[in-house]
Amino acid sequence: MGNTVRRLAVLGSTGSIGRQTLDVVRALPDYFKVVALAAGRNTALLEEQVKEFKPDFVSFTASIDDKETGNRLIAAGCRVLSPEEIAVHPDADIVVVATSGTAGLGATLAAAKAGKTIALSNKESLVAAGEIITAEAEKNGARILPVDSEHSAIWQCLNGEKQPPRRIILTASGGPFQGYSEAQMAGITVEQALKHPSWQMGKKVTIDSATLMNKGLEVIEARWLFNMPVDDITVLVHPRSIVHSMVEFADGSVKAQLSYPDMRLPIQYALTYPDRLANPSLPSLDWTDFPDLTFEEPDFDKFPCLRLAVEAGREGGTFPAALCAADEAAVDLFLARRLKFTDIARLVGKALEKHHQISHPSLEEIMAAGDRARELVFKLAGEDDK
Amino acid sequence: MGNTVRRLAVLGSTGSIGRQTLDVVRALPDYFKVVALAAGRNTALLEEQVKEFKPDFVSFTASIDDKETGNRLIAAGCRVLSPEEIAVHPDADIVVVATSGTAGLGATLAAAKAGKTIALSNKESLVAAGEIITAEAEKNGARILPVDSEHSAIWQCLNGEKQPPRRIILTASGGPFQGYSEAQMAGITVEQALKHPSWQMGKKVTIDSATLMNKGLEVIEARWLFNMPVDDITVLVHPRSIVHSMVEFADGSVKAQLSYPDMRLPIQYALTYPDRLANPSLPSLDWTDFPDLTFEEPDFDKFPCLRLAVEAGREGGTFPAALCAADEAAVDLFLARRLKFTDIARLVGKALEKHHQISHPSLEEIMAAGDRARELVFKLAGEDDK
Repeated sequence: MGNTVRRLAVLGSTGSIGRQTLDVVRALPDYFKVVALAAGRNTALLEEQVKEFKPDFVSFTASIDDKETGNRLIAAGCRVLSPEEIAVHPDADIVVVATSGTAGLGATLAAAKAGKTIALSNKESLVAAGEIITAEAEKNGARILPVDSEHSAIWQCLNGEKQPPRRIILTASGGPFQGYSEAQMAGITVEQALKHPSWQMGKKVTIDSATLMNKGLEVIEARWLFNMPVDDITVLVHPRSIVHSMVEFADGSVKAQLSYPDMRLPIQYALTYPDRLANPSLPSLDWTDFPDLTFEEPDFDKFPCLRLAVEAGREGGTFPAALCAADEAAVDLFLARRLKFTDIARLVGKALEKHHQISHPSLEEIMAAGDRARELVFKLAGEDDK
Repeated sequence: MGNTVRRLAVLGSTGSIGRQTLDVVRALPDYFKVVALAAGRNTALLEEQVKEFKPDFVSFTASIDDKETGNRLIAAGCRVLSPEEIAVHPDADIVVVATSGTAGLGATLAAAKAGKTIALSNKESLVAAGEIITAEAEKNGARILPVDSEHSAIWQCLNGEKQPPRRIILTASGGPFQGYSEAQMAGITVEQALKHPSWQMGKKVTIDSATLMNKGLEVIEARWLFNMPVDDITVLVHPRSIVHSMVEFADGSVKAQLSYPDMRLPIQYALTYPDRLANPSLPSLDWTDFPDLTFEEPDFDKFPCLRLAVEAGREGGTFPAALCAADEAAVDLFLARRLKFTDIARLVGKALEKHHQISHPSLEEIMAAGDRARELVFKLAGEDDK
C-alpha cells in the first residue's frame, strides 16, 4: 500500500468534482499531497482551498486581470501558472481534470502529450476529441483513469480480465422524468429538472441527466476509454442508481459494480488505484434494508437526446463535438428560461442535421465544429422567439 | 488465447457436475483434451463417455470386482487406475474433482500434495478438511479453483484486486420454502424438497439447498478458498439466482457477478481461466425482459441448518466434518422417508451438541469425527422410530 505520497494537481478544484476530490484528500491525508489547484472565477473558494492544502502552484481564470487575488496567492506561497502549465507539471503524479467544458479539453490534451496519469472527469475531452486524446495518450504513455461513477464501475469490473468484454451495460438513473407523458415533458420547469433523484451535481450535468443526453455522452466516453464500438454499449435504466454499470464477457458472465451514489468513491478509486483504501466517510451498502434493483430499456422516443448522442457517437468525426456544443447552448437557454425542456433535443437535433461531417478532424476542426453548432442553436432559438 | 490444449482429468464424470464438465468440453473441443475419467458405479455412462472422449485412463468404483467392464475399457484403449492415481497423474493439467462425499476429499488431498491445478466441486474437501488441504496446496504449489457458482462469482469479482475484500456476500436462492410457516415446514415431502426453483442438481445438494445447509457449507468453503474469517462472510437471500455472489472492498465498493443459473459457466471459467471463451450454448442475460433483483436477510430461525453450519465453521477443528457427516446421514434418512424435513436440522444439531472438538485435527481425526456424527444421527433416528 504505497509508502509514497501521491502528489495531485486538481484542475477545476472549486467545482463539484474538484471539491469532492479535496474531500477524499481530507479523508486520506497521509496518502495525498495537493501540489497544484486550478479554478475558474470562484477565487474566494480557491483562496480557502489554498489556505487548507498549501499547494505550490495555482491557476485561476482571471489571473491576468485580478492582481489582488494573484498577490494574495503569491503571498500564501504559491506560484501562479496557467492551467496547461499545471496539467503538465513534473511535480504532479496525478492530474485531476475536473474542469468543465472546452477548458478541460485543452488541459487533458496537454497532460496526455506530457505522458501524465490523468484522472478524467471532464466530459468534453473524450466526447469531442476522443480520437486525438487517446492517440496522444498511447503515443506518450499517458494513462486516462475515469472518475465518472459509470466508467469507474466498468473499469473496476474489467480489472484483471485478460480479454476485452463483449458488451458494456451503462446504467442510467433515468432522471426525474421516467414515466412522464409527452405533454408533461413539454411543461417541465427549470426547478423540476434541477431536482435529480439520486445524484448531487452541477446544473449542466443535472439537466443532461434529465434529458438522458448525459448518458449518451457517457456512451461516447466509454467508446474511447475502453476502445469499444458504440454498438456494443447498451444503456439500461436503473432508477435506484446502485448498480453503476456492468460488463458482459465472451462467456456470458456479467460483472457489476454497486454502491450508494457518492462521487467520492469513483474519485478515490482513480486516485488510489490499484489500491483500495478504507474511508470511513464513504457509506457501505446496508443489506438489511436493501432496495429491489430494477432494470429497463430506455425510451428513445421520449428521450431523443440519448438517440442523438448514440448516433453522433456512431458517426464519429466532428459529430460528437457538434452535439456537445449544441447541447451546451441549448441547456444554457433552458436554464435562462428561453427554451422548453423538450426544445433541448429539438434544437440539438436541428444543429446535427445541418452539421458538415469531417472524419478524423484536427483539434481546430473540432473546435470550429463546436462553435458552429453552438451559434446555430442560439440562432434557431432566436428565430423561435420571433 | 492459449494455443496449447488443456488436458483434463475428470473425477466424478457421471455425476451432475461431471456431465456438465463434459458438455463444456463438447462446446470447446479444440481447447480441451480429456485424458482421464473417473466414475462411481454408473459404468454404463462411463463406457459411453469413454467412447466419445477416448481418455487414456479410467477409474470406477467397482474396478476390482467388475472384470467385464474393466476388460471392455481396456479394450477401448484405457488403463484402469485408482481415483488417487488419476488425481496426481502428470498427463493432466487440470484435475476436476466432481466426486461427491469423502471419496472426493481423498482425491483433492492427493492432487493438492502433487501440486496440481484443481477445479474443485467436491464440498467435503474444504468443509471437513479445509485447513489440511489449503496448507498442502500452498506447500506444494497447487491451485484450487472453485467450480461452484457462488465461489466462482467471488473469484471473478476478486480478479485483479490487490487487497483482500472487507466482506463476502454469498447469495442464496433460499430454496423452495421461503415464506413457509413452521407447520408447513414440518409437513414438507421429499417430492416438494426435490423441486428446486432455479438449479438442476443432484438429490443431496437439492435437499441441502432447501434446508439452507448448502449455503452454510458454502460459507465454510469460502472461508478456506478466500482465507476470510467466517464472520466476514454474509449470506443474503436472492430468490432469482441471477447475482451469484458479491464482494465488498475496503473503500465500500461492491462487485457482483451475474448470469442465468447454469453450472456450465462456472465450470468453464475454472477450466479456461484466465481466459474467457465464447460458448454459444451458454445463455446471455436478456436485458429487455429482466427480472427485478431482490435481496433479503435469511431467516436463521426457520432455517436452523444455516446457523448450525456457520457456527461449526466459526468453531473450526472437527466441527465442520461432524456437521457434514451428520447432514449426509440426516438427508439420507429424509430421502428414505424416515425423517421429517425439520428433523434434518434437529438431528444435525443434536449430533453437534454431543461432538467432542479437536482443534487442528489430522485427516484420521476428521474422518473419525465424521463417522461418529453419522452413527449418532442414525442412532437418534432409530430412537425416534421407537
